[in-house]
Amino acid sequence: KRAKFQGSPDKFNTYVTLKVQNVKSTTVAVRGDQPSWEQDFMFEISRLDLGLSVEVWNKGLIWDTMVGTVWIALKTIRQSDEEGPGEWSTLEAETLMKDDEICGTKNPTPHKILLDTRFELPFDIPEEEARYWTYKLEQINALGADSEYSIQEEIQRKPLPTAAAQCWYNI
Amino acid sequence: KRAKFQGSPDKFNTYVTLKVQNVKSTTVAVRGDQPSWEQDFMFEISRLDLGLSVEVWNKGLIWDTMVGTVWIALKTIRQSDEEGPGEWSTLEAETLMKDDEICGTKNPTPHKILLDTRFELPFDIPEEEARYWTYKLEQINALGADSEYSIQEEIQRKPLPTAAAQCWYNI
Repeated sequence: KRAKFQGSPDKFNTYVTLKVQNVKSTTVAVRGDQPSWEQDFMFEISRLDLGLSVEVWNKGLIWDTMVGTVWIALKTIRQSDEEGPGEWSTLEAETLMKDDEICGTKNPTPHKILLDTRFELPFDIPEEEARYWTYKLEQINALGADSEYSIQEEIQRKPLPTAAAQCWYNI
Repeated sequence: KRAKFQGSPDKFNTYVTLKVQNVKSTTVAVRGDQPSWEQDFMFEISRLDLGLSVEVWNKGLIWDTMVGTVWIALKTIRQSDEEGPGEWSTLEAETLMKDDEICGTKNPTPHKILLDTRFELPFDIPEEEARYWTYKLEQINALGADSEYSIQEEIQRKPLPTAAAQCWYNI
């Protein structure tokens, strides 16, 4: 949705990139220390053990500089068909990796970003599949963010439905 | 400089991002399976133990898809004041990490990219510093890419000159 940066307003002309697996999307660049993007992004995914990387970049003439990054584990995202007020996150300076995949971030910056993230079931999937995903997302929401429960294992044990849950982001 | 992709030419509308530490730069998007960007980028750096990430992205309507990536250790880059013919690299599908920093790539794709990378000493540094960097770069070039010699250690032992070597890239 928007962000609050520490520093002189004329220092910032920022855009946000969202990355999941091997796809990414980018907002327009907005000037100032309190930029408002209010852009919606949607993607489909069937692996819930991954995460979403949100990176804020300050646009330069030739080189863009990283302002900070947030990583959101997909299994911590609530299920909802409606937009919400969003949540403020602290932008961190670095990403943490495990087995060549991002698993978190470190070194907080003084900058904050407001994100609204949610899972929505696709409109056109068979009833049985909708029930499967509703159950799965409820299970995940009930377990909470810090759960040791491995979605990865669960997915490996069970054959996956073909259609994926849709995930919405409003920056 | 340019690239050669496997697949239908109308499938590709690609751009390249260069990343070093927390800065990045991006080319324009070019259509076709043999895109030519021929864009020059320069940055200054004093840490030679890092690397340059080259990512090729296929532009979509909302989401861009990764075509492949190449990681170049800065210590493998030759010193030269002139452009060269460049070298073809295979684009790989994934990056390898060590201690939260990229150290290589894995899973080759059928796509290739032509890059010309070189170190150039800054014009305006004191003679003594120029000698230091020339010596250092010659030493690194002599050791070769697969050397076990740790630049990081070297840097930690010696106080670094204040000015940095400049690194040029032609994609």
